Order: sequence, then C-alpha cells, then structure tokens
Amino acid sequence: MNASSDSGDSGSLVAGLRCRLCGTLYPARPINFCPEDFGPLEVDYHHDAVARTFNRAAIASRPRTMWRYRELLPLDGPPTVGTQVGCTPLVRADRLAKVLGVSELYIKNDAVNHPTLSFKDRVVAVALSKAVEFGFKTVGCASTGNLAGSVAANAAAAGLEAYVLIPDNLEAGKILGATVYGAKVIAVSGNYDQVNRLCSQIAFKYGWGLVNVNLRPFYAEGSKTMGFEIAEDLGWCAPDHVVAPMAGGSLIGKIYKAFKELEKHGLIGPVSTRMYGAQASGCNPIAALVKSGGKRIKPVRHPNTIAKSLAIGDPADGDFAASLIHATGGWSEDVSDEEIVAGMRLLAQTEGIFAETAGGVTVAAARRLIQDGKIDRDGSTVLCITGNGLKTQEALIDHVARPQVIPPNLAAFEELVGLAPVDSAGLVAAS
Amino acid sequence: MNASSDSGDSGSLVAGLRCRLCGTLYPARPINFCPEDFGPLEVDYHHDAVARTFNRAAIASRPRTMWRYRELLPLDGPPTVGTQVGCTPLVRADRLAKVLGVSELYIKNDAVNHPTLSFKDRVVAVALSKAVEFGFKTVGCASTGNLAGSVAANAAAAGLEAYVLIPDNLEAGKILGATVYGAKVIAVSGNYDQVNRLCSQIAFKYGWGLVNVNLRPFYAEGSKTMGFEIAEDLGWCAPDHVVAPMAGGSLIGKIYKAFKELEKHGLIGPVSTRMYGAQASGCNPIAALVKSGGKRIKPVRHPNTIAKSLAIGDPADGDFAASLIHATGGWSEDVSDEEIVAGMRLLAQTEGIFAETAGGVTVAAARRLIQDGKIDRDGSTVLCITGNGLKTQEALIDHVARPQVIPPNLAAFEELVGLAPVDSAGLVAAS
Repeated sequence: MNASSDSGDSGSLVAGLRCRLCGTLYPARPINFCPEDFGPLEVDYHHDAVARTFNRAAIASRPRTMWRYRELLPLDGPPTVGTQVGCTPLVRADRLAKVLGVSELYIKNDAVNHPTLSFKDRVVAVALSKAVEFGFKTVGCASTGNLAGSVAANAAAAGLEAYVLIPDNLEAGKILGATVYGAKVIAVSGNYDQVNRLCSQIAFKYGWGLVNVNLRPFYAEGSKTMGFEIAEDLGWCAPDHVVAPMAGGSLIGKIYKAFKELEKHGLIGPVSTRMYGAQASGCNPIAALVKSGGKRIKPVRHPNTIAKSLAIGDPADGDFAASLIHATGGWSEDVSDEEIVAGMRLLAQTEGIFAETAGGVTVAAARRLIQDGKIDRDGSTVLCITGNGLKTQEALIDHVARPQVIPPNLAAFEELVGLAPVDSAGLVAAS
Repeated sequence: MNASSDSGDSGSLVAGLRCRLCGTLYPARPINFCPEDFGPLEVDYHHDAVARTFNRAAIASRPRTMWRYRELLPLDGPPTVGTQVGCTPLVRADRLAKVLGVSELYIKNDAVNHPTLSFKDRVVAVALSKAVEFGFKTVGCASTGNLAGSVAANAAAAGLEAYVLIPDNLEAGKILGATVYGAKVIAVSGNYDQVNRLCSQIAFKYGWGLVNVNLRPFYAEGSKTMGFEIAEDLGWCAPDHVVAPMAGGSLIGKIYKAFKELEKHGLIGPVSTRMYGAQASGCNPIAALVKSGGKRIKPVRHPNTIAKSLAIGDPADGDFAASLIHATGGWSEDVSDEEIVAGMRLLAQTEGIFAETAGGVTVAAARRLIQDGKIDRDGSTVLCITGNGLKTQEALIDHVARPQVIPPNLAAFEELVGLAPVDSAGLVAAS
C-alpha cells in the first residue's frame, strides 16, 4: 500500500497553506493561523500535478481505504498511521426514507469506521501521518470525545506518545475508549473551549504535534474523504442534499470542498449540492448564525446538551460553515435533547444503525428540514453519521425498555408474549 | 449488487444439507439435525457449478463485502439482509508481534464489522437473507450478546419481527445494543444452554426462523467469509496459524472449511494451516477436550468468566472443533480473567484495537501458545478478533486508570505531567 507509487514525485502535490482571509500562501509547516491577520490556513495543492493521476480508473484500482484519494491529501510520502481507515458503507435507507417522506435517502455510516468508530479516524490518520513526517514524537489533542479515542488508538498503533485533554463531563464510554490505549488522558474542569485554549498553549510552549491545533490545516483535510467516498459510491455523482452535524464547523465545509475538487478534476459533473448543518439546541452557535443571517458567530458560553461531541460553543470554522450553507442554498436546524433521543431510536429501528447522540441530532434535524420544506422530498439526500451509539449509552439507557426476565421454560415465554397455543396445523405456516 | 448475476441459475449451487455423522443429504430446508442420528447438518454445494464462476478475477471485480464469495454462501438469490457486511481490515500487527515474539502477525478485525461490530453480522446476514427466502416473518435467536444485537439490528433494517433471548446476566452494552433496535428482548434466568433449549422449543412450536436453531446450517456458513477474506487479503494464501475464540465451536471449523474450499477451487495452494482455539478458563469445555485427547465434550455446568460471549458450557460443535484442532496439528488454551484483561490492554496499547473480552481471550491464549512453543515463531499467524470492546466495558473499567482532573491552565498541566519549564531554544525541537 504505497501511497505515492503512482502520484509522481514525493511531496510535490502540496503547494502550501493558504490563509482563508487574505489568501497569502505559506510553506506547509505545523502552523494553524496566518501571522498577518490570524485567519485560518487551508492546504492548497498543485492541481496540475494532481490531475496527472487523479482519475476514476486510478482510484478504482486502489485499496478500499480513504487513501485511494491520496493526491488530495496533504502528505509528502505514503501514510504511516491509519493506513486502513475509511471507505465505510453508504447505506440506502428506504425504511427511514419512508418515515421521513423522501424518495432517495442514504446513510454514510462512519459509526463503523476503523479503528475507533467515528469519522475522527479520518482526520487523525492524516494528522498523525503528517506528525511523523514533521518528526514529532509527542502528539495530542483537545477533544469532546471521539477525537480522544482516535488519537489515543492511532498513536498507540504508531508508537507515538499521546496526551489527550478532555472536558471533565464526558461519557464513560468515551473516556474508557481513550484511556484503554495507554494515552495520557487528562480531564479539564471546564468546557471544550477552555480545553482547546490550554492545548494551544501546550503546543506553542512544548512544540508538540496537537492534531487540532498546530496540525489543524492537515488534520481537517482528512474530512474531505467522507465527501469523496459519498460521491464515488453514488456512482461518481454528488447528492442533492447533505446533512452533516456541526461542532467546530469544519466537516461540512470539507465535504463540500471534496465535491468541488472532484468537479474541478472532471470526476463528477457540476456540483449543485445544498449543504445542511445540524446542531443541538443546547449548543447552536452556527445554526443561530445561519438563521439570523449575521456575519459572526456569537459563542454559546454554557453548552448544555446530551450531544457532547457537538458541544463546542465557539466553533473555529463557524463563520465559514454558515456562509457555505447560505451560498449553497442550504439551511441549518437545531434540535432538543428529546428530539435527539427520538432520532437515535428512529435510525436504529428503521435501518439497524446505532449512532451516537450526534447521529440523533443529524436525523432529527433532517426530519425537521424535510417537514419545513427546506429539503426537497424528491432529491437525493445523504445523512452523515459520524460516531457509534455504544459510546454514548447514557443518553438512551433510560429511554429504552429493559428486557423482562422469565424463567427458562416455554410456558413463561408464552405468558410474557401473549401467545395463544397453536394447533399442529399452524406449526410451520411461515415456512 | 445482484448476487446471482454471474453465478448461473438461481438456486442451483446448493446441493442440500448433509449430515456430518452419517453423510445423508437432505433438501435445503429449515432443519438443523439429521432425523436418523441427530447429527448436525452442513450445507453442501454443487462444486462443478461453483467452479464455473468462483475464481480470483471474478471475486476481485465485486464489491468489498462478504457477498463477493457468494457462490459458496447458501442463498438461492441475491442477499436481502446485511448486503454490506464484511471485508473488515486485516491489520499487520508488528508492535504486538514484537511483544509476543513472532515474526509475522495479523489481526482480523471484526470489532469494526458493519453494522453491529462483531463477526455475528456475517452469520446473521446469511441466516436472515435465508429466512426471507423461506418466507419467515418472525425471526429470533438465543444469544450470549453479540448475536442479540446483530439479529435485532439486521431484522430492523429488513422489517422483520424479532425475538431475542439472552441470559439475564449480560453486560449493559450488549443489552442496550439489542433493545435499541426495537426487537423484543427477553432475559432468561439461566445460562446460555438453558436459553438455547427454550429457543429450540419455540422454533419447533411456532415455526419461527431462529437463526442459530432451525436456520443454523445456513447461518454457520456465514462464518466462512472470515476465512475467505483472510486468505484473499494475504494475497490468496492461507496463514500458517489461526487463533480463533471458541464458544459454540463453529467459527474455527468454518474458517478452516473456507481455506479448504479455496484450495479445492484452486484459488490458493495446498492448505497446511494449524488451527488454535482460545477459551476462558471459566468455561473451557473444548480446550479441555483438546488437552485430554478424549472424544466427547464434558459440558461445563456453571460457566464463570468475564468473557460472557464465550460462556457456552455445552457447545454444539465442540466435538468437531476439538477433532479439527488435532487433525491440523494445532492446540487449544484457556486463560484466566486476569489474562483476558491483560490481553485486551495489550492489544489496545500495541495496535490501537479495542476488542471485547473474547478478543482478550484470543490474545492471551496466543501469547501462551507462543511461549509454550505450540505456535512457531517464524510462521504467519492470524488472530481473529470477533467483537468490540465498547460492548464489554465492565470488564476493564476497574483496571484502567481514570483521568486525573485539572483546572484549565498551563501551570496545572505542567504540575500534573511533571514538565520542567523549557527555554525558548527547546520550543520546537521536535519539528
């Protein structure tokens, strides 16, 4: 699995990091903001060089991992961390479609992403492979949960020392899902924004590779693979609508960027996808900005939602996400904790997919957007499920009936389920 | 994804169900034992017809799901349930290999199988697709946990009514991972063997499709896909050693059967794989039989282990598993609860893979088999990981350090991790 075998000279495809505000291009180094105006930086590519090998046939011939799109991922050599991440199922969801009242619906199911059951494995695979290229021996992150587990696991597999900082109110499954890998997990008594600020200080002072701080421009590119996969699995076609959960606001923009890059290189036709962002009402800074039509995020000071993985009050890419949503003709919705639980149950009971709370947010927001006519019932719609329900069991445990207990005999079973005795003629009616 | 598009006439590939004791062939119906001698039945195929389309090139051209091996799966038409199951990663595990002292080690990682994070999705996809072919509207199972979730989820996605019976002492994650899908989950105050007996009565009386009772011959064939995938991902080659966990004893035999079928059809060379079975000391009927050299399983009346998914005291395929292990020159080991926890942690910390307790059993047993010289250090070895660690969190929660909590400032972080202040020259040494 040599990522550079047919992609030309090693390192030649990344042009640098470009400021999203002033457009200045910087060399590809571990920095995350423009020294001039503090604008966020984004990876830019030598698209002429990319075009030489980035085509449908070449991609189809490669292993089913996210690295099949390697020309548009920011490494100089083959990936060394997370080499088998990605290419999760795109599930045609006809039973859920019927309930929601749309004709063509899909679930992009990153709840089964390898190795840690969330889309974060995509961004971490890129960030830690890049960390190895930069020579970092110590890595880390600020996390609302999924990133913690992904950094811890992928760092363990790569033999890197990892520091993982989390808010102190996370779900047990997310904490164990990070500590088990031997990472140094530290809980911070504060919200995500405070954790993130502390990580910026650590990255600056110790020169460590923090995946969503000084490695963020590289890290964020990994999210594009979700968009590349959706388009490829739809037969090289972008869907009419995409609904994505929003925390920091990066994912939704990167999915769209992926479609636009495929369009630029002629792998799909003109993109007319409308992007829809889903948030929890208890932490809805981006949804609020979309609805108000304003220009700048108004941070939520005290996030309060069961969707803890989305509880970022001051989202780094919030302004960009809101503009993108407007520019594509999409919309944003936020939903209550009750709607989140209902969304999780609906997805499980119609499609057999157990998503974490953020998935409940996405399903519930999609439901509202369809009811309100914001998403049109005849187009194709993809819902992005970004993490697994086993990580956020607390949210459901009181809402799902516990099994009733019976002694081990047939009479007890029949009494419980209310089965009438059947005569022998009825025995095998079903077969 | 039409499973029969290049496999000849619909339904022509299954010859019937053959008794493993007397060899009598029966038509492919929902029965699980020979009416003559009560021997278990196994699916037999028309291998001449299979040979017409079952080759490396045809398989390579198909989608990366378990159905790429469809000629040797017992459906008459295309699959209708679990169409995207399988093709999980085979991970080269060099860091774990170093600890165990072997040269070539792989993890087959069904902890990320779609949709319910265990190898049971393979057998359920076959059993429920077959249930649909037979016309069953109500399905179910007796389960130690993973099967419960898989039947519940896949039945939900297919719109089938499901009854899931479990022992009443299962882990919370496994119970929620079944109830969330809307299945009728019933806890039975007894061990798995009692649950299983009750399910046999239900299947007989009501004519329902119970996946591991009257659909068992079809169901069990799904496990072969784990073997097919291992061989294909090793470049069409069977490994020297396979270590698999044993509960009912079916999986280990089906993996070997898969290698032999690939050999028969010329897709791989002569098979000399040695098969190794792993059990928990608290429920080790098959390992005990292997070690004693006897002929018949001596059931374990009161299983007592944290590896609840392996706690089957009277394993249906135990005798066959023990003979196979002897015939291939393999061996079996059983390990204590402490070794299980250590095995889970070792796998997580070296390879970033969080397996359930059964995975700890496999890793710990492999460690012992290597130390004792039963597995030779120079050959290739595959460890089968069959379920995800998020389902059995109870087993680890007291063994993994909880995160320490600090206030959100740099001084507190430095004090906790014992970092000395660095001078500015040392800041970015790593990059």
